[in-house]
Amino acid sequence: MIRFNNDYNHGAHNSIIQALQEINESSYAGYGDDEWCQKGADEIRKYLGTADVDIHFMVGGTPANITVITAALRPYESVICALNGHINHHEAGSIEHTGHKILSLPAKEGKLTAEAIKQTASHYYDHGEAEFLTAPKLVFLSSPSEYGTVYSKKELLEIRKVCDQYHMYLYIDGARLGYWLSCNRCDVTLEDLARIADVFYIGGTKCGALFGEALVIVNKDLRDHFRTYMKQSGGILAKGWLLGVQFYTLFKDGLYFKLAKHADKLAAKLKQGFVNASIPLYMDSPTNQIFVVITNELAEKLAKNFIYEFDHIVDEEHVCVRFCTSWSSSEDDIDQLIKSIS
Amino acid sequence: MIRFNNDYNHGAHNSIIQALQEINESSYAGYGDDEWCQKGADEIRKYLGTADVDIHFMVGGTPANITVITAALRPYESVICALNGHINHHEAGSIEHTGHKILSLPAKEGKLTAEAIKQTASHYYDHGEAEFLTAPKLVFLSSPSEYGTVYSKKELLEIRKVCDQYHMYLYIDGARLGYWLSCNRCDVTLEDLARIADVFYIGGTKCGALFGEALVIVNKDLRDHFRTYMKQSGGILAKGWLLGVQFYTLFKDGLYFKLAKHADKLAAKLKQGFVNASIPLYMDSPTNQIFVVITNELAEKLAKNFIYEFDHIVDEEHVCVRFCTSWSSSEDDIDQLIKSIS
Amino acid sequence: MIRFNNDYNHGAHNSIIQALQEINESSYAGYGDDEWCQKGADEIRKYLGTADVDIHFMVGGTPANITVITAALRPYESVICALNGHINHHEAGSIEHTGHKILSLPAKEGKLTAEAIKQTASHYYDHGEAEFLTAPKLVFLSSPSEYGTVYSKKELLEIRKVCDQYHMYLYIDGARLGYWLSCNRCDVTLEDLARIADVFYIGGTKCGALFGEALVIVNKDLRDHFRTYMKQSGGILAKGWLLGVQFYTLFKDGLYFKLAKHADKLAAKLKQGFVNASIPLYMDSPTNQIFVVITNELAEKLAKNFIYEFDHIVDEEHVCVRFCTSWSSSEDDIDQLIKSIS
Amino acid sequence: MIRFNNDYNHGAHNSIIQALQEINESSYAGYGDDEWCQKGADEIRKYLGTADVDIHFMVGGTPANITVITAALRPYESVICALNGHINHHEAGSIEHTGHKILSLPAKEGKLTAEAIKQTASHYYDHGEAEFLTAPKLVFLSSPSEYGTVYSKKELLEIRKVCDQYHMYLYIDGARLGYWLSCNRCDVTLEDLARIADVFYIGGTKCGALFGEALVIVNKDLRDHFRTYMKQSGGILAKGWLLGVQFYTLFKDGLYFKLAKHADKLAAKLKQGFVNASIPLYMDSPTNQIFVVITNELAEKLAKNFIYEFDHIVDEEHVCVRFCTSWSSSEDDIDQLIKSIS
Repeated sequence: MIRFNNDYNHGAHNSIIQALQEINESSYAGYGDDEWCQKGADEIRKYLGTADVDIHFMVGGTPANITVITAALRPYESVICALNGHINHHEAGSIEHTGHKILSLPAKEGKLTAEAIKQTASHYYDHGEAEFLTAPKLVFLSSPSEYGTVYSKKELLEIRKVCDQYHMYLYIDGARLGYWLSCNRCDVTLEDLARIADVFYIGGTKCGALFGEALVIVNKDLRDHFRTYMKQSGGILAKGWLLGVQFYTLFKDGLYFKLAKHADKLAAKLKQGFVNASIPLYMDSPTNQIFVVITNELAEKLAKNFIYEFDHIVDEEHVCVRFCTSWSSSEDDIDQLIKSIS
Repeated sequence: MIRFNNDYNHGAHNSIIQALQEINESSYAGYGDDEWCQKGADEIRKYLGTADVDIHFMVGGTPANITVITAALRPYESVICALNGHINHHEAGSIEHTGHKILSLPAKEGKLTAEAIKQTASHYYDHGEAEFLTAPKLVFLSSPSEYGTVYSKKELLEIRKVCDQYHMYLYIDGARLGYWLSCNRCDVTLEDLARIADVFYIGGTKCGALFGEALVIVNKDLRDHFRTYMKQSGGILAKGWLLGVQFYTLFKDGLYFKLAKHADKLAAKLKQGFVNASIPLYMDSPTNQIFVVITNELAEKLAKNFIYEFDHIVDEEHVCVRFCTSWSSSEDDIDQLIKSIS
Repeated sequence: MIRFNNDYNHGAHNSIIQALQEINESSYAGYGDDEWCQKGADEIRKYLGTADVDIHFMVGGTPANITVITAALRPYESVICALNGHINHHEAGSIEHTGHKILSLPAKEGKLTAEAIKQTASHYYDHGEAEFLTAPKLVFLSSPSEYGTVYSKKELLEIRKVCDQYHMYLYIDGARLGYWLSCNRCDVTLEDLARIADVFYIGGTKCGALFGEALVIVNKDLRDHFRTYMKQSGGILAKGWLLGVQFYTLFKDGLYFKLAKHADKLAAKLKQGFVNASIPLYMDSPTNQIFVVITNELAEKLAKNFIYEFDHIVDEEHVCVRFCTSWSSSEDDIDQLIKSIS
Repeated sequence: MIRFNNDYNHGAHNSIIQALQEINESSYAGYGDDEWCQKGADEIRKYLGTADVDIHFMVGGTPANITVITAALRPYESVICALNGHINHHEAGSIEHTGHKILSLPAKEGKLTAEAIKQTASHYYDHGEAEFLTAPKLVFLSSPSEYGTVYSKKELLEIRKVCDQYHMYLYIDGARLGYWLSCNRCDVTLEDLARIADVFYIGGTKCGALFGEALVIVNKDLRDHFRTYMKQSGGILAKGWLLGVQFYTLFKDGLYFKLAKHADKLAAKLKQGFVNASIPLYMDSPTNQIFVVITNELAEKLAKNFIYEFDHIVDEEHVCVRFCTSWSSSEDDIDQLIKSIS
């Protein structure tokens, strides 16, 4: 069985494992106050065009989202998010559990639009009647989106403009950030993100690390007591250096981007394979997630050799499914899959 | 500099690292639904005298505590805990952040007493006037305690009896469980714990693992939707097998106990060293944490070569400090320290 | 200026004021543990066809909603509610503030449909993949709805059936319950509601009382520690008898229904007035809220003598506004308004 | 039976009832945006020496406490309160339910001391190690205290100084404020309170009103979106003018103070009665709550004609009980009680 169900079904790239092994005999201070977290953050800073950011290493995306939103919002403030956004549907109500409402907007190609955000913000901020509504204060978006699509720089700048107009924070969930930055439709850099977003995270778990995400806090208003928030929500790792050294390894020589490019390239090949086989794409994604609409019959056939993810029922005869490549996928895996659909 | 400040300043025992490396090329299902979590849990079950428990692997103690308490209590129910309990003072208000009050009781040698618990429970349950109070529903204790002391089987059974009488849950935080089970004053086994506690966790982070804790849910009432609670509070690891394989490694041949025994033995030697040097123990601990009262002068001198943890100021001339051994401490480390205090 | 903006712009029916005055010299036990709460509840019970319900008097609808939902749900459970539901848009995120997600569904004539509820429940309960979603557990509906429309007995029974199928609670927000029960399209009685709903409240504030709502808990599972929940969320009135005596007065001789019928009748007359003047109804409501689409010009003209409520902009030339009658409206008020639109 | 169990066992002073009756025919805007709230607030402002405060009328003390603390604190911040403080023991965990920890300090004569507050604040703020503790940010005190004792101006100024030093808010719960300001040991005025406290409330429910408290927010940092917080926590009354007109009535001619002075005077007479009868005072209170230690025998005898409140068991032979006078107590009530103990 070959796994295409997600991009976190393997351990880590070998250099990560090796790095962990190499420092295993050394001792460090706890809770991220160590030299590897420092060095990992410094390598990331080199890409950001500024040293003036706070970087925290966290174990996963859900705790990162919980902690950022808890720290950023007052109790009456709410989050703008796409209807299909991860925090809205796949995190078991974690945001509402922190006490905050999610204002979910219809997405276009899996993405929020500046226009829809503006409408929601304007509805609240541009009228005097808003006393008994929540105040939209943070725009949450994922890029790549849940459907593998990516925001263009123009789209991000338009969203930024709305955020500026209404004094809202822009938070980018980058669980799959690498696959975005390395894909051929990407026109932004990490430096752009550090200028455009107030806070974002660089995903490790799904991009070659054993586990962990690097949270980059650009906006000074969001930095206060962040480590206390991390502790309070259970999101601080005792042996923080385990995270630091991974990001150091991923960023010191650009390994992070190399691994992602590999996956994107394989996904592109797979996508072409589906196109060649006249199998319709559900969404035209330039990154490592390929959504296609296949017949139940093909679905059944493929399930014998491949593990993929069911997305939704299209009609009585068809389902939409996801094939996901990763840094650990091989060209041979792809070739076998393409062969099976041809 | 030799670190005695805590028991989580090193990576992991070599077999853990090796195990992680060996399975690095394999792919697994996410979120703990994999064979290693299964195998790790099964190895633990062998020690419990029953297969009828739920075992979940979590990243750290704070998320374990948060999730257990969130899942166990209704909004009007509260937690009984020692004044110096970890959740009361060292977790940034994480329990109150979940909405629950902590009823903190004075501790005796760092430990809760059945008598004090009973008094608190009786105050609420044995009178009709309790409508505007919270209902104590879960007793939280750590063994070893914050001061390295351990509960005897008799003490636990007395506490269990009170819990039974008032229908309260008993939750044992076992962040340092290994050091308890392997020390020479321990008269309980994991099998006892599975009979006495409703839920407890077996600490990995501080006992030889790279990271992770194994939560054992005995009481059926506490099992419902636990994985959803884990997700909601950000406490579920995407690559669950990383945790499973560690606990498999620690428990399949008793490595867990061997590592702890090593640390306890070194701590005992160190304790004797302090006694020999006529340095008073702050608390007589049989496990890997040794609290002593030393002069400011000695504190300063030791700080040149050793990293230890400050606990509190005793008087103008003295401080109470903690020396902590671990599976990674060496006999030579201890000898150097003993030499320095003699 | 004549107020049609809402149904809570006057004090209370005279008999309420008189009742409060009459008992003002007497002294009572606090927090609802008094004879008037007993008597008020007993009068209500006469209409319910059963004495086996818990009745609590609360100050307002928002605290009632908060307390019911807090008491009914576990942290991973969520609320099904119409998109335009009061708790979703007009209570400042109060439900999310308690930690629970609202699953909002499109409404039909302001009302939830059994079909849409079933689809949502089925999506969660009928598939095995739901671990990281919230569990829909309580259906919240208002009757009359936000648009004055009412549920038929058939609609309620269909919803009840879905609730039974998926073990969900049915909670009816009856802020304007009187106007429903007294309108000419109502085919349910309080006795029906006590059979169909798990919990509902009988609105006083908007139906002739000075303030207060009577919460009726039918389902035994929802009764436990309810007064503690009320206290915890700040929803218990020290002088509970002030509420009890109001409901006693409203229910002992059917005053509650008489007052509502008066308002419904005036609203019907007003509705006919709009129809006669060829002004389109936005929604055909049989109760005391009449939504119409008027020109900006007419809106401006009417604003000189009448206070009404703006609902939304329809197009550049038209707005949708609400006229609300109440127990305190007079026939003369209506006649003046009809004259102004003719 | 004569009630001395509390000061909220009667309706309201006659002028309140009359005022409610007089305006019953008029209509008003909802949610406190009406002329009576304006006029009530203005009357209060006359006593404060400044017009620059926000005044909100709330239904009760618990919702006021919940809303103030929710609005004032960030999630990692905590409340300093006396061990016997109302929010710590009599409000069913309402503060923890909002997510905040209470740091409870031993009280002296029922009161917090500046010294104890300073010690707690210093422990957190004056050391660098506080990352995993909560930050004490709001000092909560009641005057009169739970035991009827009152703070002197000197004590308040000392506490204010500590609050200034550590940038903490001072919040005074004035559920029984009238009885303080009118007692013979009071050396502060409302004007002093508006200078010393950041926020406080003027109790109505226990001081002659039918129900309601007037919250005075002095510190500008605490004013933002306060009405939204009130709505979110269910603490805003639809017919706000019912509260406004009560406070207008109580403050326009000083009725508030007159009623309280009456109760204090009766309590003083009662206290002297106990002293004359050689019955020991548990606490020497200058306000309307008198705590005495009586024999079980006397307790039983008194219970035949008087309702009083049990406080705690002193020893096998004695109990501590509370007798509470109010604006509604009569001299004759007191005389009968004195006769019974002589």
